[in-house]
Amino acid sequence: MPALPRIRRTRPSGLAETAPPPEPRLAELTADGLTWAHLDTPTLPEAEQLAERFGWHALDLEDVLSKRQRPKIDEYPEYLFVVLHFPWYDKAVQRLNAAELDVFIARDYVVTLPNVELLPVSRLFARCADDKTLRTQLFSRGSGYLLYHVLDDLFDYCFPILDKIGHKLDRIEDEVFEGRSEEVVRDISNVKQEIISYRKIIKPERATLRMLERQVERFLPEELELYFDDIVDASERIWDLLDNYKEVVEALESTNESVISHRQGDVLRLLTVFGAIFLPLTFITGIFGMNVLYPGEGTPEAYWTILGVMIAVLVGMIGFFRYKRWL
Amino acid sequence: MPALPRIRRTRPSGLAETAPPPEPRLAELTADGLTWAHLDTPTLPEAEQLAERFGWHALDLEDVLSKRQRPKIDEYPEYLFVVLHFPWYDKAVQRLNAAELDVFIARDYVVTLPNVELLPVSRLFARCADDKTLRTQLFSRGSGYLLYHVLDDLFDYCFPILDKIGHKLDRIEDEVFEGRSEEVVRDISNVKQEIISYRKIIKPERATLRMLERQVERFLPEELELYFDDIVDASERIWDLLDNYKEVVEALESTNESVISHRQGDVLRLLTVFGAIFLPLTFITGIFGMNVLYPGEGTPEAYWTILGVMIAVLVGMIGFFRYKRWL
Amino acid sequence: MPALPRIRRTRPSGLAETAPPPEPRLAELTADGLTWAHLDTPTLPEAEQLAERFGWHALDLEDVLSKRQRPKIDEYPEYLFVVLHFPWYDKAVQRLNAAELDVFIARDYVVTLPNVELLPVSRLFARCADDKTLRTQLFSRGSGYLLYHVLDDLFDYCFPILDKIGHKLDRIEDEVFEGRSEEVVRDISNVKQEIISYRKIIKPERATLRMLERQVERFLPEELELYFDDIVDASERIWDLLDNYKEVVEALESTNESVISHRQGDVLRLLTVFGAIFLPLTFITGIFGMNVLYPGEGTPEAYWTILGVMIAVLVGMIGFFRYKRWL
Amino acid sequence: MPALPRIRRTRPSGLAETAPPPEPRLAELTADGLTWAHLDTPTLPEAEQLAERFGWHALDLEDVLSKRQRPKIDEYPEYLFVVLHFPWYDKAVQRLNAAELDVFIARDYVVTLPNVELLPVSRLFARCADDKTLRTQLFSRGSGYLLYHVLDDLFDYCFPILDKIGHKLDRIEDEVFEGRSEEVVRDISNVKQEIISYRKIIKPERATLRMLERQVERFLPEELELYFDDIVDASERIWDLLDNYKEVVEALESTNESVISHRQGDVLRLLTVFGAIFLPLTFITGIFGMNVLYPGEGTPEAYWTILGVMIAVLVGMIGFFRYKRWL
Amino acid sequence: MPALPRIRRTRPSGLAETAPPPEPRLAELTADGLTWAHLDTPTLPEAEQLAERFGWHALDLEDVLSKRQRPKIDEYPEYLFVVLHFPWYDKAVQRLNAAELDVFIARDYVVTLPNVELLPVSRLFARCADDKTLRTQLFSRGSGYLLYHVLDDLFDYCFPILDKIGHKLDRIEDEVFEGRSEEVVRDISNVKQEIISYRKIIKPERATLRMLERQVERFLPEELELYFDDIVDASERIWDLLDNYKEVVEALESTNESVISHRQGDVLRLLTVFGAIFLPLTFITGIFGMNVLYPGEGTPEAYWTILGVMIAVLVGMIGFFRYKRWL
Repeated sequence: MPALPRIRRTRPSGLAETAPPPEPRLAELTADGLTWAHLDTPTLPEAEQLAERFGWHALDLEDVLSKRQRPKIDEYPEYLFVVLHFPWYDKAVQRLNAAELDVFIARDYVVTLPNVELLPVSRLFARCADDKTLRTQLFSRGSGYLLYHVLDDLFDYCFPILDKIGHKLDRIEDEVFEGRSEEVVRDISNVKQEIISYRKIIKPERATLRMLERQVERFLPEELELYFDDIVDASERIWDLLDNYKEVVEALESTNESVISHRQGDVLRLLTVFGAIFLPLTFITGIFGMNVLYPGEGTPEAYWTILGVMIAVLVGMIGFFRYKRWL
Repeated sequence: MPALPRIRRTRPSGLAETAPPPEPRLAELTADGLTWAHLDTPTLPEAEQLAERFGWHALDLEDVLSKRQRPKIDEYPEYLFVVLHFPWYDKAVQRLNAAELDVFIARDYVVTLPNVELLPVSRLFARCADDKTLRTQLFSRGSGYLLYHVLDDLFDYCFPILDKIGHKLDRIEDEVFEGRSEEVVRDISNVKQEIISYRKIIKPERATLRMLERQVERFLPEELELYFDDIVDASERIWDLLDNYKEVVEALESTNESVISHRQGDVLRLLTVFGAIFLPLTFITGIFGMNVLYPGEGTPEAYWTILGVMIAVLVGMIGFFRYKRWL
Repeated sequence: MPALPRIRRTRPSGLAETAPPPEPRLAELTADGLTWAHLDTPTLPEAEQLAERFGWHALDLEDVLSKRQRPKIDEYPEYLFVVLHFPWYDKAVQRLNAAELDVFIARDYVVTLPNVELLPVSRLFARCADDKTLRTQLFSRGSGYLLYHVLDDLFDYCFPILDKIGHKLDRIEDEVFEGRSEEVVRDISNVKQEIISYRKIIKPERATLRMLERQVERFLPEELELYFDDIVDASERIWDLLDNYKEVVEALESTNESVISHRQGDVLRLLTVFGAIFLPLTFITGIFGMNVLYPGEGTPEAYWTILGVMIAVLVGMIGFFRYKRWL
Repeated sequence: MPALPRIRRTRPSGLAETAPPPEPRLAELTADGLTWAHLDTPTLPEAEQLAERFGWHALDLEDVLSKRQRPKIDEYPEYLFVVLHFPWYDKAVQRLNAAELDVFIARDYVVTLPNVELLPVSRLFARCADDKTLRTQLFSRGSGYLLYHVLDDLFDYCFPILDKIGHKLDRIEDEVFEGRSEEVVRDISNVKQEIISYRKIIKPERATLRMLERQVERFLPEELELYFDDIVDASERIWDLLDNYKEVVEALESTNESVISHRQGDVLRLLTVFGAIFLPLTFITGIFGMNVLYPGEGTPEAYWTILGVMIAVLVGMIGFFRYKRWL
Repeated sequence: MPALPRIRRTRPSGLAETAPPPEPRLAELTADGLTWAHLDTPTLPEAEQLAERFGWHALDLEDVLSKRQRPKIDEYPEYLFVVLHFPWYDKAVQRLNAAELDVFIARDYVVTLPNVELLPVSRLFARCADDKTLRTQLFSRGSGYLLYHVLDDLFDYCFPILDKIGHKLDRIEDEVFEGRSEEVVRDISNVKQEIISYRKIIKPERATLRMLERQVERFLPEELELYFDDIVDASERIWDLLDNYKEVVEALESTNESVISHRQGDVLRLLTVFGAIFLPLTFITGIFGMNVLYPGEGTPEAYWTILGVMIAVLVGMIGFFRYKRWL
């Protein structure tokens, strides 16, 4: 019946009325008997209002507002409560963090409550609001199919971040043998922390998605069950890649350690060559610089003899180090 | 029937009668047919008295008094005996240790016997003693629900310690590239030991809590079964975080190793540059400092020639090291 | 019935007609009621045409065209869709990459769609086209048996790459104790990256092959079920070898680290010996080179005395270092 | 019936009759229809005699005499054959080794055959021999209960060794930052080897004990089944502790590595500072020590000028190194 | 019926007839209706002949001749095909390799086809040929019992190699703290490679043996089923030991790394002490060696003053380094 979607998006609501009143920020779309409600970073009153309207459990409400969550699914007779995490680059702290998406899904509604703005969700919502064809397409096959599209967009969004990490690893691999080891150490450390953070987000997600695949069946026409397989697959692919990246970065780190060690050896070898050649030679000049009377003092023959001895020492030393392949 | 809670807390019992007689330290609260007895670090006679009163198995009594325990659940027809560990900062040895909480739970009582004072339990007990509404709220839904609240408070208490570790890791990450490597080594070592200790406490706990979730059902109204899920979840979250911290601290440690290596390389390079430049130059001055007769001795032309040669050597060396990017 | 194979291979089709028209590149062979269609790197129109002809699911079509895939099997009532990865040395980026082979198999057709040209498949196809006996042999026992031969050839192709890695490891083991540590570091790093890449390809493959073994039974006469066991075995053997190679390369890496450390110690020892001998001796010559009046100044006795002292110092030092086994 | 225990301990049998005849070393205790036979390091004839008397399988006999065993349980209709390992400090080789305890248990006997003397077993046997009350207490509840007490004493005996390792780790932690790195390296190495040896002993034991718990039920009154749970628990606790110790010692080792690296950096920095300051200064003195004619030769002004330049160089260098935080 | 064993061993067949004709190398023993055929490194015609005679599957024939195999069992209605690997020291390449033993076992025959000569099998075969009693003993209880003895001998043969590795580890442990670090590095590397090779052989074997235990039951009288348990146990024991050795060698390696680092620190410290003492002192002599006019030039007072200053510097430096515990 309700063919006309009602949008009640009021956030960027133009006129600034002195003090910001508690205006409704919730955006809603309804089509084919299915409602999609979306709200970024819900506040306590907003969450309570929603909980009351849709009849959610008090524990879920707590979880929506709490910041410490794990990906999980709570099953109720009427609805599912799903908590998922997605990687999100927090520009404030220059770090990869987990963005939380809380989803309530029932036969006739999907409510998405991210704790920070998740662009893929916002954009899909906006496109559904603008494009009637798309809306019909996504809404007409049940809430499960709509959720699939939301998650599909979110996981598509995960890969560019992975690619960026991959490119960084490629660049580091090129740099390791080139020279600037301090930068390489720093780059490796940063990439490693990013990989660790990403893994932290995806690790508990995989089991949750597999459970979601089973649980969401009741909101999904039978012929579409295959779709959620795709989501599970995407998360496994991400995990495989992260595993691979972890191995790569650890390999690069130990290679870099070896390169640094090797270079220190080179430097030390040079110092030793210089020391081993010039310390004895300077000692010889010292002997003949003493103000005591020694054979040949003050004669040119002595000079040439000494010079000869010193050249012999020099040549011997260089030969020795060449033999040892230090030069 | 017993609507009036009877409190028999006698520990801080005012009057100091010459020698401390074996006065009862056990504190009890009763409401809605449910009794909560609480006693910190029970002694042998106290434990025996309790065991006799409630009819506990001799092995459990041993376990309460023993210091070597693992988290576990012993199931009896009448009651459950639960041993859980919680992180606890032992100020005496400046170390994170495990505090043990022994719990006996039956249909009509909960007995909590921590082996050191656990503030969250003591505080909840005190609040229940003071606040009748809270007491009714917690006691009226059975012993399982009361236990849930005790554990919930205890796990809430686990997170600030984790956050502190997290902040230490953040600070170390900033310090690694800054300079004071000795302090960084020490800080990394300390945090690592804390993480290891924490993991030691939580690791066997997880399986126990999952078992507790199943076993405690008989003391819990059906609609509340969801609650213990929350406790299990909290322990999993702690474990995930510890896993993540472990990866982070290991990454920081190997980065720090690389940084130390890299810096040694810098220092060594500087030494080598000085050696490679000044050892040959000093050798040249040595040659002309010998008290033998060489061409140009005692002439100013020789001085300027030598100076020219030395400057050429110096410039050549600096050029060479610049080419090698050591300067 | 269709005993005559129809080949419609048109790719290297001779005449260059001004602009290349969308000519059919698909190659097909039919014998004994079984069709094998093969097409390298299918484009969107080509894939769509095939999907329409054979009636494939839209998701599979997407997967054929997408570049991000994991090895997997999708089961449909009519056909199986199989995605497998094989190691493939990408000369453009000088790196071991995954080549993807998409296979559709039904009772009466096998369609192989690699995303890059896979020589073993192309060659087997060509041989089937040329050699009627072989064609009959492979096609007459059903689509499963044909697929077995395709995969068998592909896995045979995997071992030479492994052998090459094995030989590299052998060579590195010989080089580690010989000297050129920089090259060794580089070689170890390269081999390690190759092993990591290979593992990344094979790791998710194993589970898929085991599933394939079960699923493909319906296209395979009962007495041939053993054959796919062979394929699974080959993948396990590859995995075992990669595991072993990983252990070997890690052992070589840590040995190389030790060797580099040890050599630095040798160099440093030499420098220290020279420093410890000649710094004091030069200091002695310095004392007697000062332009101040000291006992014995300008006398030959002083010269021989000093020389004696210096020789004593020299012999003492050498003795000391010999005792310490540094010389 | 046989209320009187018969002890036939004959080992320390007083009178030394010329050559030691093959006197029976087997000690036996019987009470309440249950016999406990105990014999340290049984020889082939002794073992054969026992096997014949109690009717044991030939393979078990082999296992009793063989030195290469794993903890295991062999189940027979009449009896159980149990092989268990316990840590045992072998003073001869100064190393933690595995002592093997072979146990045969049937409804009416327990035979304990350790391959080296295990003090806890010998002592329990002696106490049972001396103390009639204890004997009745242990023997009256069946062979399973007696075995429980033997194992309980043995596992109690495992903890002091663990505590000793724990204290060593504590001491190492204190020493790491204090200085004597050679001793720390040695101590860490020793403790690590002890932990590895201990783990080797306990690792296969755990599965065996869990199996024992199930198998021994038939020799145990129903109400005592809980007891073997305690033994399993003890072995798990030991394993947890060893896991924890392993993590701790690895953390200490890498900390120690960092500390050594860091200290080398300090030493190297000091050398570089001295080199960088005095090599140029000595070079300057060398210039003016040459026997050539330079401006200012032989004048006091030159002396003061040179001294000024040298002090400027000195101050500049020190300032530079202070800025770099090397001093 | 055939009580007389027929031996057709023709390999070392005396007379050298110009060119070696394809004479039968297969050795056979028959007793109690059971035939044991043994042939080292079978060639293609030999294998084909055997396959025809006993009716083996074509795939098995391929596996016998192929060099790339994994331990495995193929089950057929008539017979079992078993592939097992055993450690074998290949003197040609100085390395521990896998020797493959292919076994065909049916109710009335056992065929052993090792790909290199396996001494324990050859010896058991020879002993059976020579000793009628042994033959009857081994052959009379079915093919499974014979196979048990073959495998038992092979596994007994595995332990001496393990012991040798164990002794090497013991020796390395003694050497690590003694000095010759280069040899230690080399020894550790060699032992590590041996352990890795051994593990590679045994790892896939364990699952195969456990499967063999179940499959071989049909060729084994019921009361002998226990025997194969022994074989499985032996392989587990080997694996446990290899695990332990791996931990030990890794511990030794990191200890050796620490020892090398520590020694470098000592060397560097010595160099720094010499540098820090003699560079300043030589500088002082340099000052007074300049040919400029300074206060006290050419006076004996200056000499003694300078000497005093230098001794003060020397004593101060030594004191400083003693305080720092470097001397």
